[in-house]
Amino acid sequence: MKNYPIIVVLALTTSGSLCFSQADQTAIFEDFKPSTLNQPGKDYPQVNSQGYARFRIEAPGAQSVKVNLGKGGIILKMAKDTTWVGTTEGPMDEGFHYYHLTIDGGVFNDPGTLNFYGSTRWESGIEIPAHDEDFYALKDVPHGNVQQILFPSKSTKTSRRAFVYTPPGYGKDQSKLFPVLYLQHGWGEDETAWSNQGHVNLIMDNLIAEGKIRPFIIVMTYGMTNDIKFGGLRNFDIKPFQTVLVDELIPYIDANFNTLADQNHRAMAGLSMGGMETKQITLNKPEVFSYYALLSGGIYAPVDIKDKSNVKLIFLSCGSKERPDGIKNAVAALKDSGFNAVSYISENTAHEFLTWRRSFYQLAPLLFSY
Amino acid sequence: MKNYPIIVVLALTTSGSLCFSQADQTAIFEDFKPSTLNQPGKDYPQVNSQGYARFRIEAPGAQSVKVNLGKGGIILKMAKDTTWVGTTEGPMDEGFHYYHLTIDGGVFNDPGTLNFYGSTRWESGIEIPAHDEDFYALKDVPHGNVQQILFPSKSTKTSRRAFVYTPPGYGKDQSKLFPVLYLQHGWGEDETAWSNQGHVNLIMDNLIAEGKIRPFIIVMTYGMTNDIKFGGLRNFDIKPFQTVLVDELIPYIDANFNTLADQNHRAMAGLSMGGMETKQITLNKPEVFSYYALLSGGIYAPVDIKDKSNVKLIFLSCGSKERPDGIKNAVAALKDSGFNAVSYISENTAHEFLTWRRSFYQLAPLLFSY
Repeated sequence: MKNYPIIVVLALTTSGSLCFSQADQTAIFEDFKPSTLNQPGKDYPQVNSQGYARFRIEAPGAQSVKVNLGKGGIILKMAKDTTWVGTTEGPMDEGFHYYHLTIDGGVFNDPGTLNFYGSTRWESGIEIPAHDEDFYALKDVPHGNVQQILFPSKSTKTSRRAFVYTPPGYGKDQSKLFPVLYLQHGWGEDETAWSNQGHVNLIMDNLIAEGKIRPFIIVMTYGMTNDIKFGGLRNFDIKPFQTVLVDELIPYIDANFNTLADQNHRAMAGLSMGGMETKQITLNKPEVFSYYALLSGGIYAPVDIKDKSNVKLIFLSCGSKERPDGIKNAVAALKDSGFNAVSYISENTAHEFLTWRRSFYQLAPLLFSY
Repeated sequence: MKNYPIIVVLALTTSGSLCFSQADQTAIFEDFKPSTLNQPGKDYPQVNSQGYARFRIEAPGAQSVKVNLGKGGIILKMAKDTTWVGTTEGPMDEGFHYYHLTIDGGVFNDPGTLNFYGSTRWESGIEIPAHDEDFYALKDVPHGNVQQILFPSKSTKTSRRAFVYTPPGYGKDQSKLFPVLYLQHGWGEDETAWSNQGHVNLIMDNLIAEGKIRPFIIVMTYGMTNDIKFGGLRNFDIKPFQTVLVDELIPYIDANFNTLADQNHRAMAGLSMGGMETKQITLNKPEVFSYYALLSGGIYAPVDIKDKSNVKLIFLSCGSKERPDGIKNAVAALKDSGFNAVSYISENTAHEFLTWRRSFYQLAPLLFSY
């Protein structure tokens, strides 16, 4: 993510134009509106049509209030009056961003926003409207359901949670069977991420309504099985999660949902760390999945895959602000070796959820179509 | 809720017995454990075997950190060192409690806990283990699903969200049809409350596994349709919500789930404000429901109900710390008038979720059994 130094502004008690402390500032349009991810009735944070974000925090006795946007420790300072107010110095990237506050040295969430699980904690979130946001908008079309299931896991000695997207009309005709995509979140996130941050259910609803894809089921579960407490990647071992996914969750899904329960109709995809998991599990278990997708989650080299006949599609993607050349080169090499490989680069986005919403939108029509 | 003045204690850098500032303090067992509602990996807040709660907040530069437990504005003061630590002066009631922090005059959540929608905002929550917690525990039994649905609502010109509990094995046999309970949250809560705070899905799973109830579907949606921004009750008008529930949601559920779609197999229940809604809608629409339940949500008088033959059960409940006599007297009057009425009083609980978990546990076996 880019750095967004804050413009320090005085808190205003009357409405009117803000008085910026920096004279050389580009004009900021005063058309700020509440972020779409705010809690009901909360006016702040706000976003304007240029993509600037404005924050307003009530903490009259505080010594310092900062807004932390992004992993790089970007700290935004705010002015103090009865409330703390500040605006980013420049437009933010389109799409979803995690953030939190630092108040007098402690980490808290902005009480204005809904919470999203990232960085192994529930964080604040803000949405900068994207020019192409229509594909994940809530529309007046038939909607699929997102089901919370609790499935038995002997290996971890508990009932584990997953979310299952079922397409509109699922279940009305029991003889109608669906392919299944197993879709993983990134490091520090959990099984809520693809619905809450990714709007994957709305993307599916819209694609199905437009007749652009073959409807399928999506299964999302927690992928950090072996280190639930700290979420560390240093000693990450794929085996515990692989056991949960392949030996416990897949059989449960095939026993309890109307699935096409064979390799030809089973895909695995993941973002970031979920891509690492996808790569390891698809290679460890070449008989289970036939569609592979890594979203900002690394690449496959032709040499990784022993039997080409197992693989119907390899999809690799990332944001243009990540390492697009690596993705493009990997896909070229896979194609040269005879694989059906597709690359996608999300323009003007980094390692964030708009990259993954767009990647999913590109991936979905390709799944189960070969 | 009772008042819980805080014991001010010094933050300790080494483990050891705490030094209380009040000499006449009853001995507090030092067997504190993280609350079951904490975020993954978070050690605080903690609860001991006596029901004391201990809070620990990192905010090194703050001037004051308080814990607000309950609607009465109970403020717990904390000592300051590198962290802020404090313990309630007495045991808290068993069960779930909403709370939040006041840091230097601003309202924030405790970063240690999961968030729960109450008081029209996402709040912190703490769980004091109840002696009878087994009935809502996550057990190794078959689990039903909680499905998020988005249903079309012409009256509010949007797709609205509801959660639908379906019993274990639901849908495997399409000819198996289920009765339906419409279950409402309280003021300032939303459609997530009965699952997140109430564990209603786990109560159902356990009751079904023990063969104690006739399995049914539960539908939970947002009940403050007419005042989404401020959630005020002053000018509450039941009509907008009644339209959503009766004219839009019920037809959608009957069209999309395997329901017994008649009055004999339809119940409505609500807690607190949801009880008020239940009373108004069941009386306005006497042809729709046949089982009525108000949980800490008022009473029916015999005169309220014009045609006794529409009503198979009236269930009224509250906590012993509310107004149990009002519930008992109302049920006696209903019985005298020939109604099948049942009262339930939850011992040692107030207007909080343990009252409603227990009330639901008592109600469920009675539903659809007359």
